[in-house]
Amino acid sequence: MTIEGRDDARGRRIRLGMVGGGQGAFIGAVHRMAARIDDRFDLVAGALSSTPEKAKASAAEIGLDPARSYGSYEEMARAEKERPDGIEAVAIVTPNHMHYPVARTFLEAGYHVICDKPVTTTLADAKDLAEIVRRSGKAFVLTHNYTGYPMIRQARAMCAAGDLGDIRIVQAHYIQDFLATKVEDAGSKQAAWRVDPSKSGAGGTIGDIGTHAFNLASFVTGLELDSLACELTSFGEGRSLDDNAQMLLRFRERNGVAAKGTLWASQVAVGHENTLALTVIGTKAGLTWQQEEPNRLWFTRLGEPKQLLTRGGAGANAAAGRVTRIPAGHPEGYLEGFATIYAEAAELIAATDEGRAPPEGLGTVTIEDGVTGMAFIEACVRSARDDGAWTRL
Amino acid sequence: MTIEGRDDARGRRIRLGMVGGGQGAFIGAVHRMAARIDDRFDLVAGALSSTPEKAKASAAEIGLDPARSYGSYEEMARAEKERPDGIEAVAIVTPNHMHYPVARTFLEAGYHVICDKPVTTTLADAKDLAEIVRRSGKAFVLTHNYTGYPMIRQARAMCAAGDLGDIRIVQAHYIQDFLATKVEDAGSKQAAWRVDPSKSGAGGTIGDIGTHAFNLASFVTGLELDSLACELTSFGEGRSLDDNAQMLLRFRERNGVAAKGTLWASQVAVGHENTLALTVIGTKAGLTWQQEEPNRLWFTRLGEPKQLLTRGGAGANAAAGRVTRIPAGHPEGYLEGFATIYAEAAELIAATDEGRAPPEGLGTVTIEDGVTGMAFIEACVRSARDDGAWTRL
Amino acid sequence: MTIEGRDDARGRRIRLGMVGGGQGAFIGAVHRMAARIDDRFDLVAGALSSTPEKAKASAAEIGLDPARSYGSYEEMARAEKERPDGIEAVAIVTPNHMHYPVARTFLEAGYHVICDKPVTTTLADAKDLAEIVRRSGKAFVLTHNYTGYPMIRQARAMCAAGDLGDIRIVQAHYIQDFLATKVEDAGSKQAAWRVDPSKSGAGGTIGDIGTHAFNLASFVTGLELDSLACELTSFGEGRSLDDNAQMLLRFRERNGVAAKGTLWASQVAVGHENTLALTVIGTKAGLTWQQEEPNRLWFTRLGEPKQLLTRGGAGANAAAGRVTRIPAGHPEGYLEGFATIYAEAAELIAATDEGRAPPEGLGTVTIEDGVTGMAFIEACVRSARDDGAWTRL
Amino acid sequence: MTIEGRDDARGRRIRLGMVGGGQGAFIGAVHRMAARIDDRFDLVAGALSSTPEKAKASAAEIGLDPARSYGSYEEMARAEKERPDGIEAVAIVTPNHMHYPVARTFLEAGYHVICDKPVTTTLADAKDLAEIVRRSGKAFVLTHNYTGYPMIRQARAMCAAGDLGDIRIVQAHYIQDFLATKVEDAGSKQAAWRVDPSKSGAGGTIGDIGTHAFNLASFVTGLELDSLACELTSFGEGRSLDDNAQMLLRFRERNGVAAKGTLWASQVAVGHENTLALTVIGTKAGLTWQQEEPNRLWFTRLGEPKQLLTRGGAGANAAAGRVTRIPAGHPEGYLEGFATIYAEAAELIAATDEGRAPPEGLGTVTIEDGVTGMAFIEACVRSARDDGAWTRL
Repeated sequence: MTIEGRDDARGRRIRLGMVGGGQGAFIGAVHRMAARIDDRFDLVAGALSSTPEKAKASAAEIGLDPARSYGSYEEMARAEKERPDGIEAVAIVTPNHMHYPVARTFLEAGYHVICDKPVTTTLADAKDLAEIVRRSGKAFVLTHNYTGYPMIRQARAMCAAGDLGDIRIVQAHYIQDFLATKVEDAGSKQAAWRVDPSKSGAGGTIGDIGTHAFNLASFVTGLELDSLACELTSFGEGRSLDDNAQMLLRFRERNGVAAKGTLWASQVAVGHENTLALTVIGTKAGLTWQQEEPNRLWFTRLGEPKQLLTRGGAGANAAAGRVTRIPAGHPEGYLEGFATIYAEAAELIAATDEGRAPPEGLGTVTIEDGVTGMAFIEACVRSARDDGAWTRL
Repeated sequence: MTIEGRDDARGRRIRLGMVGGGQGAFIGAVHRMAARIDDRFDLVAGALSSTPEKAKASAAEIGLDPARSYGSYEEMARAEKERPDGIEAVAIVTPNHMHYPVARTFLEAGYHVICDKPVTTTLADAKDLAEIVRRSGKAFVLTHNYTGYPMIRQARAMCAAGDLGDIRIVQAHYIQDFLATKVEDAGSKQAAWRVDPSKSGAGGTIGDIGTHAFNLASFVTGLELDSLACELTSFGEGRSLDDNAQMLLRFRERNGVAAKGTLWASQVAVGHENTLALTVIGTKAGLTWQQEEPNRLWFTRLGEPKQLLTRGGAGANAAAGRVTRIPAGHPEGYLEGFATIYAEAAELIAATDEGRAPPEGLGTVTIEDGVTGMAFIEACVRSARDDGAWTRL
Repeated sequence: MTIEGRDDARGRRIRLGMVGGGQGAFIGAVHRMAARIDDRFDLVAGALSSTPEKAKASAAEIGLDPARSYGSYEEMARAEKERPDGIEAVAIVTPNHMHYPVARTFLEAGYHVICDKPVTTTLADAKDLAEIVRRSGKAFVLTHNYTGYPMIRQARAMCAAGDLGDIRIVQAHYIQDFLATKVEDAGSKQAAWRVDPSKSGAGGTIGDIGTHAFNLASFVTGLELDSLACELTSFGEGRSLDDNAQMLLRFRERNGVAAKGTLWASQVAVGHENTLALTVIGTKAGLTWQQEEPNRLWFTRLGEPKQLLTRGGAGANAAAGRVTRIPAGHPEGYLEGFATIYAEAAELIAATDEGRAPPEGLGTVTIEDGVTGMAFIEACVRSARDDGAWTRL
Repeated sequence: MTIEGRDDARGRRIRLGMVGGGQGAFIGAVHRMAARIDDRFDLVAGALSSTPEKAKASAAEIGLDPARSYGSYEEMARAEKERPDGIEAVAIVTPNHMHYPVARTFLEAGYHVICDKPVTTTLADAKDLAEIVRRSGKAFVLTHNYTGYPMIRQARAMCAAGDLGDIRIVQAHYIQDFLATKVEDAGSKQAAWRVDPSKSGAGGTIGDIGTHAFNLASFVTGLELDSLACELTSFGEGRSLDDNAQMLLRFRERNGVAAKGTLWASQVAVGHENTLALTVIGTKAGLTWQQEEPNRLWFTRLGEPKQLLTRGGAGANAAAGRVTRIPAGHPEGYLEGFATIYAEAAELIAATDEGRAPPEGLGTVTIEDGVTGMAFIEACVRSARDDGAWTRL
């Protein structure tokens, strides 16, 4: 990655602990691979599972020092403080309901925090955590990993530069077919906590992936959502959380134009694996990006031929180049996008520790974005309960 | 085309007149080419323009007998009755506001009618026209031409056969960038009448192309729309009609499942030429079709690999085959889809004249569909005025 | 079509006869539909089959006057001369071996000829026919229909204008899976004559579709083929003609650069319906086109983003526009491309009859191109017999 | 990665040194990122550049212990032997001409070797090296990294299982536009050595990327190439090595069928970034894969609909699953494919050290494959010099 103009060279390495991510947890392994790619972190401690034996076995599997495999996150927070080589930051990769207590504990103990999304299970908790982050003076990074893709950075910079003119329309969808049947009744651990309000919060699909789509739309366009009119549906019989969400969007005016949009999130969309797509249309140009072909960005100026911009290719801009590792035509994927979140977290942590401003151009998703994300989820739930009434965030 | 098992062989040829479609009118030429492909019609008379000299010049250009080029549609309706070789059917290809009076005149004079969409400019007129059609005993065909594509017939037959299981989700969009700027102020005749409520009716984009998307979704799924929550926007400064429409959809329950959807129609979507896309997702499978690649249909059964079905190809069903002219890999396009509307109109007209049921499998869009389309437009307008309240058709 | 700036208006209509194209013959119906689209021909006579009853039945099916359905092409050539309203041109849509005698007969009788490809079954016959055409003073059109696609015209004009710089590489393939099994033994009439040297000539797949690929590459680039090194294979057991052809190409120098290429034609390519693809690469830019997505042309200038040019779209040039009927995003297909061959044949015939030069920009494939095509087939066969030695055309 | 059923858990970690890969060298950073992803290697020593200061600076940048940054590879080979924690394996990422001497040195000193391709600059050297590998008893891994893509493993397993029937056709191309202009004269270090026979060997593009295409075709189909007829061209003025290669291929008979093919490699293909494509066609089915969309594999059985198989998706087989890290729809890219080469190298090294057979299903490209690759390059050069005569490997 060309962050700061260096190849895969890295400045200070950060000692990292992990909470969650034991055996069978998909996202823990993803965080670890992502953290390794750019070589800015050493994973040296973990509380990988709330089940002690599983924590131990998981730690052994990934080669953690057994002495630094902890039975609880509280213990890790305390014990690592005692070590001269103790962790400096923690990655939180648990189900949603644990994000808040774990993040709070580590922030208050003086650690930097890298946390999976959504940031909490309630808006109140998110606001509370935002206050804790501010008081802590520590770095807080929310891993909305799709923001790490180079062509998303490209799109964002193009919107900011006015290449699209005034934005009129924002269409987003994030659809999967993971929950098309009642897999939670068939032993899927990944499904079980996602459909359980006590672990997921008030939003099902809207919290799990709808927030990604919303975050991405906000990240790329820089627009603020004013209000939404939402329909939440639970197609899976007996599910208490939504597995399909459709909504209309009204954005706040910018330059006299208030953009409109729709957002669709679904986990019953048979035939779709992980289709996260964003279309942004302005007065001068339009663009479309789809996560399953992340190295491509369709871009068309009004009255000109369609362009297919490619990562590393002729039309790539500086914002894309900054987070590009390898040449055009050599596809970067999901893990590389995720790795950028970690590489930038390392930059942010180093700057925070040194009391200086982080390098320009970081794309870090902050606790404030996390609060907005929770406001989004709660607005969806409120609007849906109110028969789709337009609801402000 | 293999209608009735015959190659390009055709039964009785129908003598056709045309109202509208003079010089510079896009859709008139389309109807004429479409009518020729399968050789079931002879265009022998016309009232091609309300401007007499233009009517005459247009008729000369397309080789009409000058004696049968009329200065007004009323005159044509009268005069052709006097001829032994007079027209049997009329094609109405005027701006929207003329559909009703012209259709009424010809139906009441005993002609069959092929009419462009939307059927009228008000729901009341549409209902009135439906009554006139019923009384007339004549064939009435609404040219929602996208229903003529073979892969749309395939998709419809698959939905009807239960290949998708119970339908849960219907997503449709129809987007263009024709009105991204104020082309109506720059001399575009095509734009001028479309943004004028006195010629278009109460719907702008929603009437011009939103109706196509709605009709297509209904045609393919067979579902009835219960209600919608709509946001209409006029991005073009000073436009009185919508140029962008986004809405949520609730369909009526079928087999205990009430499908949900969104529909987006836009004529300010920079970067999109004529993108009409439909995604239907059921409990067992999902499908996606896009008009700019009409010979392809994506189809995925739950838990099986994605299939790309092709017109004429291995997975094509009988409903697609029935309206297929040439082998797989030899693309059929927009005109062929439109030609199918005409070929089936000929079948319907012949059957009507002979007092027999039309052949099974005709996909004709009827006056009742036209009424539903007008109800759709009016519901959109009402919902939008009522700040997006759920509104029944 | 905008030929000569007129909508679907047409000048003089041409009275047409057809030889071949009876029941069950795919290509006859294609020619008829193509001839109708732009309304420049009246099909009024036919010798549709060498089997008299079939000729009669076929004529009835397509509505020919029984008096003008002939039992042999010779009879048609004679009888139509006697009529004041006799045909002016003939379309030859028989198997290959009949092209020469039929074309000769009609040319010598003073008719214009529209002939399917390849023009004859031997190079000697083709040269002979070229002489006959010259002597006759009549129009001769070879229906290499793929040259009729607007984006092919666009590509050709771009090559001619130097948009690609000096051409270095020409890659073409035309692949189908029609003959993957021994369908000729299973009753396929279409297959039977294609694998029979007495009807196809010395080339199997190379003659049937390889000539299309070669013609298209020549048509677009304007380059002359110098020599080729060819491998012909008959994968189908016992087939005497090739069903797969692969070859290296050397083009004649232009501006000091001699382009190189490969060409692959196959009818055993399982998974491919009718994939005719052309890639041309020059010093300044490269382009790619594929027949199954005919409305699109990929074009990339060195060091610039990839462009997807669309028929009727922002980047379409005058050469494409000249043969474009309907707006961007409304797909034209195979029949429309074929129709352009007919529309231009009408232009050529009218100009020939009037003793004037045809309008500029016609893309007609001539008898000389037909001779080159036969030279190509014979060079392939010679090279293959000579173990792939480089062989001049 | 699910190698051996473990998540990102890894067995023994291997201590690794690197030769080459200093500042500005693209492929060195790639090897390092790839080696980190699955956490099986510790890069602890390096001779990163033949220029001492650059070696030192490069080592500092990537955080190597300065004491283990060596001025020459010979020194590293000696010095590391003296350390109890010395390296166990070396990665060779130099220009081609250094592969042989470095590999020889390290093998003879008792290290395992991971070497970039092509294995040497002459066939004689390759054969010599093969003998050295055999004598050494050490693991030797050639990083034909494209073999690491899951869908390539899928395709290989399908060919092996007979899913395609008997293979008839193998088409491969690998095209870039890196050398479209004389960038070697404009300061490109990457270009300079590639066009220099003293560093690249006798093949230019054919050695640099043609070998990848050939290796991939062999890897997937399991077929042995019998002979080829090759045309090499240097379009860049004054280049002594080829920058474009086109050839015909004859494979050895298997089950009575001798497959045919073409291969095109080019580095002047304007508009193409890194397009490595493979099409394999058998009697029962055909498949196509393209490196720029590596998570997809098109597969069509004769007479059935086209399937788009996806990494991790419904149709993925065990061979693909074995090297898959993350779920369907979360794209893996070039680095992940490369990481698989490293992960499997770790498996092979561990097995070699323990004197046991490596786990089943490893896809390691061996020194024997390297010898075949050099035979391929030399056959291309010989055939081209002999005006394209069929030449045996």
